[in-house]
Amino acid sequence: MRRGVRRTTDGGRPSRRRRPPARFLGIDIGGTKASAVVVDRTGRIRHRAGTVLHDRKDPPTVVARILRLVDAGLAARPGSVRAIGVGVAAQVDSRQGLVLHAGNLGWGRVALGPRIARHADRPVRLINDAMAATYGEWRVGAGRGARHVFGLSLGTGVGGGMIVDGRLALGSHGAFGEVGHMTIVSGGRPCTCGHRGCWEAYVGGWAVAERAREAVRAERRSGRLPVGFLDPRARQWTARQVFAAHRAGDPIARRVVRETLDHLANGAVGIANAFDPGLIVLVGGWIAGLPEAVERVRRAIRTSAQPTAARTRVRAGLLGEDAVAVGAALFARDGAVARAG
Amino acid sequence: MRRGVRRTTDGGRPSRRRRPPARFLGIDIGGTKASAVVVDRTGRIRHRAGTVLHDRKDPPTVVARILRLVDAGLAARPGSVRAIGVGVAAQVDSRQGLVLHAGNLGWGRVALGPRIARHADRPVRLINDAMAATYGEWRVGAGRGARHVFGLSLGTGVGGGMIVDGRLALGSHGAFGEVGHMTIVSGGRPCTCGHRGCWEAYVGGWAVAERAREAVRAERRSGRLPVGFLDPRARQWTARQVFAAHRAGDPIARRVVRETLDHLANGAVGIANAFDPGLIVLVGGWIAGLPEAVERVRRAIRTSAQPTAARTRVRAGLLGEDAVAVGAALFARDGAVARAG
Repeated sequence: MRRGVRRTTDGGRPSRRRRPPARFLGIDIGGTKASAVVVDRTGRIRHRAGTVLHDRKDPPTVVARILRLVDAGLAARPGSVRAIGVGVAAQVDSRQGLVLHAGNLGWGRVALGPRIARHADRPVRLINDAMAATYGEWRVGAGRGARHVFGLSLGTGVGGGMIVDGRLALGSHGAFGEVGHMTIVSGGRPCTCGHRGCWEAYVGGWAVAERAREAVRAERRSGRLPVGFLDPRARQWTARQVFAAHRAGDPIARRVVRETLDHLANGAVGIANAFDPGLIVLVGGWIAGLPEAVERVRRAIRTSAQPTAARTRVRAGLLGEDAVAVGAALFARDGAVARAG
Repeated sequence: MRRGVRRTTDGGRPSRRRRPPARFLGIDIGGTKASAVVVDRTGRIRHRAGTVLHDRKDPPTVVARILRLVDAGLAARPGSVRAIGVGVAAQVDSRQGLVLHAGNLGWGRVALGPRIARHADRPVRLINDAMAATYGEWRVGAGRGARHVFGLSLGTGVGGGMIVDGRLALGSHGAFGEVGHMTIVSGGRPCTCGHRGCWEAYVGGWAVAERAREAVRAERRSGRLPVGFLDPRARQWTARQVFAAHRAGDPIARRVVRETLDHLANGAVGIANAFDPGLIVLVGGWIAGLPEAVERVRRAIRTSAQPTAARTRVRAGLLGEDAVAVGAALFARDGAVARAG
């Protein structure tokens, strides 16, 4: 009623009666930083709401910073944010908007979705970050128009998500596509999750760095350490440094990368066979450091997958570092639309 | 029109005007035999249409025998078969009803669905056998009422299917859930599919038998062959014989079974993590020979899967050897219903 009255008093200025254009806020919460974008109905980025680093990872500090990102997104003009999507590097309960377990943040259960919804007075949808990236690539990126897409996320961790028959599969606990913890070497290397032989324990960024360190140590002990680019005195490298050393010709890094690509390809053949997605989109920071991975995965699937799965296409994502935030925003958009309809 | 005329002439006997009760014919085509059942709307088996063995595996011979099974099913009284479902141990194109590749039958492309449909003048739906078994367990077996179910089929081969959010996932090429060719030991044992390290190459019935043979050979070479139940002069055993020898205390069979259960458990942890099904139903002939596998898989998932996936329940199927035929029949029922509605 009050709304109707206000409209009547505005009656003389028709342009003011139009609702401002719809916007959707997407937030990407990773293990070391969070960033946010505001997109329009078509998924085009209209505004970047900024980035914050998790120099402290306790939930109150991180949540307070994320709420500031939310405020910055809500303030963006022109437009009006209708819904908020959150993609988080965690196991989540999408129905209730809960973070259940975020290894890289060291979080247990955090009711992040309801907290943001209260603060922003907007509907909030929270999903796993790899699912968000998959959704974004499906809606406006490399998977546009496909009925099935597997989004494989290669970064510090390994994750995934899948569009099954035109819908994002959430699974029973919001973890569908969590292929980082698919067993790839039965009884193999210990993973951070406590199990052994997970794919992530071979091709995740942390595992690539760890395997490089072990290889350098083994060479050192053998006394035949070649002059290379991996500084043997360093206590740790990042996967990015290992990839750079590989490109520069460091023999240890080359071996580590070759083995990494073998494990990546073997796991990808398994995904093509077991999920039959027709299309795999590779997302995440890893690919920028090792672009040949796309062709390697493509070839392995063509030559080694089951006869029909061998036709699975493989593409690099198109949204780059924005995939999670844009995907989360579009997931919120489509949820809002679904509720409205 | 003719039908209407006939009805009029039957007008004096109202009981004859009723349509006979609806029945659905389900056919299970495996690598060595085919069998068929007729079920009513509730999935109850009303009739068994028989079994035929593939002593010859060429498509014309097998198809002719399957058409005889179809005729026997159509002739079953009372009732009238409304639709036919076919579950086949093969890669299939469900949309067109084609067998694309059936390794155990040695078939390439066979237009089986259209052939049966022409012969029987009924709608025919054709799916992979593990998918059919999953569908059956979901509709009337151990997965009844669940929104998500992964059906893991353990037999000579290893296969699977999944109900995702209340629908059978077919995948891009009708092969969703083909976890037998998920990589479990990257770079490991050669599989019949040409790739290495597939799960089936460790836990499929053929692989269990092959590993037992290798273990006996190795013991023989070492000169310390213990007195056991696995006859070292035999050229081949079946998995069932290996399991029986294990139960009887044969030390080689026990070791082979222990390793098999380890690989089974590690793969199942990967399925719980990557497909997040909430419920895994174990189907196929293997489980009858090694019932402790159910508890072993259950325990591995509880202790080694991701925090949420660790809640995944594990059950043995309830439909036994009828799972594929009953599931195919119900898949045809639901397809027919969907078309009618």
